Amino acid sequence: MDRNYKIETFEDVSGLGLIKGFKVAGAACDIRNKGDVSRLDVALVVSDSPATASGVFTTNDVKAAPVVVDMRHLEVSAKAKAIVANSGNANACTGERGMRDAVDTCKFTAGILGAKPEQVLVCSTGRIGEFMPMEKLRSGIKSAADNLSSSDAAGAAAASAIMTSDTRPKTVLVNVEFDGKKFSVAGMAKGAGMIEPNMATMLAFLASDVSISQNLLKETLKAAANKTFNRITVDGDMSTNDTVLCLCNGSGGVEISESDADAIEAFRAAVAEACRVLARKIVGDGEKITKVVEVKVVGARDDAQAEKICRSVGNSLLVKSSWYGCDPNWGRLTDAAGYARTGIELDKLDLFYDGVEVLRKGQPVDGNKPLWKKIVSNKTFGILINLNLGSAEDSILAADLTEGYVNFNKGE
Amino acid sequence: MDRNYKIETFEDVSGLGLIKGFKVAGAACDIRNKGDVSRLDVALVVSDSPATASGVFTTNDVKAAPVVVDMRHLEVSAKAKAIVANSGNANACTGERGMRDAVDTCKFTAGILGAKPEQVLVCSTGRIGEFMPMEKLRSGIKSAADNLSSSDAAGAAAASAIMTSDTRPKTVLVNVEFDGKKFSVAGMAKGAGMIEPNMATMLAFLASDVSISQNLLKETLKAAANKTFNRITVDGDMSTNDTVLCLCNGSGGVEISESDADAIEAFRAAVAEACRVLARKIVGDGEKITKVVEVKVVGARDDAQAEKICRSVGNSLLVKSSWYGCDPNWGRLTDAAGYARTGIELDKLDLFYDGVEVLRKGQPVDGNKPLWKKIVSNKTFGILINLNLGSAEDSILAADLTEGYVNFNKGE
Repeated sequence: MDRNYKIETFEDVSGLGLIKGFKVAGAACDIRNKGDVSRLDVALVVSDSPATASGVFTTNDVKAAPVVVDMRHLEVSAKAKAIVANSGNANACTGERGMRDAVDTCKFTAGILGAKPEQVLVCSTGRIGEFMPMEKLRSGIKSAADNLSSSDAAGAAAASAIMTSDTRPKTVLVNVEFDGKKFSVAGMAKGAGMIEPNMATMLAFLASDVSISQNLLKETLKAAANKTFNRITVDGDMSTNDTVLCLCNGSGGVEISESDADAIEAFRAAVAEACRVLARKIVGDGEKITKVVEVKVVGARDDAQAEKICRSVGNSLLVKSSWYGCDPNWGRLTDAAGYARTGIELDKLDLFYDGVEVLRKGQPVDGNKPLWKKIVSNKTFGILINLNLGSAEDSILAADLTEGYVNFNKGE
Repeated sequence: MDRNYKIETFEDVSGLGLIKGFKVAGAACDIRNKGDVSRLDVALVVSDSPATASGVFTTNDVKAAPVVVDMRHLEVSAKAKAIVANSGNANACTGERGMRDAVDTCKFTAGILGAKPEQVLVCSTGRIGEFMPMEKLRSGIKSAADNLSSSDAAGAAAASAIMTSDTRPKTVLVNVEFDGKKFSVAGMAKGAGMIEPNMATMLAFLASDVSISQNLLKETLKAAANKTFNRITVDGDMSTNDTVLCLCNGSGGVEISESDADAIEAFRAAVAEACRVLARKIVGDGEKITKVVEVKVVGARDDAQAEKICRSVGNSLLVKSSWYGCDPNWGRLTDAAGYARTGIELDKLDLFYDGVEVLRKGQPVDGNKPLWKKIVSNKTFGILINLNLGSAEDSILAADLTEGYVNFNKGE
C-alpha cells in the first residue's frame, strides 16, 4: 500500500524549540544538594498559545506525585501551556507533602507564565523517597523562565536538564508532507535505568505544530507509546514516574481532523516515528549496556503469546548475560521462550540471528555456527523466533546485562 | 496447636544411602568431553524393592527429554526401582534422538538392575542442545552399578555427581517419631543457575522408608515443593530439566495410610522439612551470590497478590543489585512491589528489615536509618512487607545479583 505522506527524520537536533510557537530552557539549581550548580536540572517547555495536550503514564501501583497531578490536570483541561520537569529527585513515595509540592510547582510556574495551574504539567525523575527542595526548584524554574527561547542552545539545555544517568541528550525531529501540507513533530527524552516496557523510568516530551482534538491526540499517543516505549527493556524494572507528554499548539496551520483519514494517517506515522527514535535512543543509552538486540516473535497464535515471549526472552538474565559475552547461546533463548508458558512447540520453532538460520524445527543448523558467533558479537543484531503456530507477531528492543550495570546500581 | 510428632533435622549428611533398603553410587565418565575422568557425573539411586514413586517437574513449555520420559514412567508405574542422573549434559532441545537416548538410558539401567524400564527414572542437567554421549554414559552407569552401597562415601559421591556449577553437595536427613513409631526422609539436590521458582534448573531426590500410596505421596510432594523449591529465586530463569523425585520403599515398616491423620501430618512435615533445607541450600549456593534474603509479604488481599509481590521484589534487578551493595534502598522495593500491579496502596504499606521499621504507612521512619544499613550488610536478612489490605501472605528466598554472576554467565 502506498503511503500518502512523505516523512523525514532528523536525530540529535536541538529539540522542542524547533516547533513554531514553542520556547524551551534549561536551568541549574542543585536539586541533588551536592553543591553542583553547573549541572542542569530543570527543564521548561512553553507553548505561546495553550496547546492540546495528552499523556501516557506509568501503570505502576506506586505513582509519583507529579504523575498523579498530571493525570488530574489532563482530565480537567484539554489544553496545556507548559511542561516543567526536574531531574535529581523523583518526588515519589513522598506522601501528602509530595503531592502538595507537585501542585505548588504547577501553581508557581503558572504564575510566572500567566497560565492556569491546570495548564501546567510537571514531571520529576531521580531518587525515590526524598522531599523536593522546593526553594531551589522555584529558583530554577524562575531562572529557566527568564531564559526561554527557540535557540539551539536552549533546546540542548532543556534536553540535558532532564537527564539522570543518561550519558547523552536524546532528541528527534520528524517533518511530514501530505496533500501539499507540512507539519512537524519534535521530541526529547531521558531514560537510562529502571527501563522496562510499560513506561519505565523514562520521560519523553513531544511537541507539534498541528491542531488536533484531545481525543484524537490521546489515541494517537497511546498507540505510538505502546509500540515503542512499551517495547523496550533494559532491566525489567518499571518506574513510578514514567511519563510521555505531547503538546500540539496548531501554530503550523495544519488541522488533523477526525474526518480526514489522510491527515490522521500522516500524524500517526509522525508521532510513531518520533517515539520509535526516542525509544531506541533510550535503550541504546541504558545503564552500562554494550548491546541492543531486537527480539522479534512471529507465527504466534495471538498477540498475547508473541508479547509474552518477547518479554520473557528480553528480560532473561541468562540470555542478557550471554549477549554481553557474545555467546550465541540458543539454548537459553529457547528456555526463556518456553518458560513464558504460552504453549510453544519446540519441534515447530525456527530461530534466526540476523536472518541466519540457527534452529530449524527446534534443531540446530550447526553448519551456520561460525556465522552465529560473528553476528552476536555485533553491537546490534536481531533475533527472529518463528513459532509456526499462527500469524501474530510482536517485537521488543532489549539491552544486554553487564557487570558494569550491577556495579553501577549496587548503591552506597 | 501441639504437634503429634517429633522431628530432627541433620544437614550435610551422606544422603539417600542413610535410608534402609537404598543404595547409591557416583561415577565418572567424562560426559563433558573434556578428558576430565575424575569429575563425577553419573549418580545412581537404587531401592532394594520397588518403591512408591512420585515427581514434580518443570512447567517450562520446553521440557527436556528425561522430564518427558519420567512423566510417562510415573503414569504407567506407581513404583520405581532406581533413579539414574547425569550432570554435564541436559539432553534438552535434542529432538527425537534425545528422546531415544533418554529411553535407552532407562532400558540400559533396568537391564543391569533386573528391573522394568518404566521403573527407572532418568534426570539430566548441564548444557542444553547437545546430544548425550551415550557410550560414555553407559560406561558410567555400569561403573556406578558395580559400586552401589549404603556407605557415606557412596552417598557423598552421588551428591557430588549431580553438581554443575554448585560449589558444594547438598544433602539432608529428617528423622521423625510419632505414636512411638519412627521413619526417615533423606534428600540430595543440586542448584546453582537458572534458578527461579516453579522448578528452575534444579534436581532434588528424596527417599523414605515409609510405605505410602502413590496418590498420597504425589499430593505431599507437590505441596512441599510448592512452598519450598517453588519459592526460591536466584536469577528468575526457569530451566527445561527441573525435577524433584521421591521414592518410598516401605523398608522401615511404618505405613502412611489415608485413614491415619497423625501419620499423614508427620510425613508431610518431614517431606516439607527436607525440601525446605535443600531449597535454602540451593539459593545459598546460587551462582556467585553473596546474600540470601527472605522477602515476606503479609496483609495481602489474597494469595495471588502476596505471591506476585514476592516474585516482583525477589526478581528485580535493581533490588538485587542494591542488596549486593548493602544499600537499604527501600524506594526500589516499593517500586518493584508497585509494578507487580496488584493494586497496592502505598499509604497503607509498612516495611521492615529484620523487624526494624523502615516505612510506616508508606513514609520512611528515618530515625532507624543507621540500623537499616547494618541489617542489609548481613549475609542473610528478612524483608517484611505488610500491605494492610487483608490477611493473605507468602514468602520467597531470593539471592542478590552480583558482577560475578554476569561474568560467570557471559559465556564463551
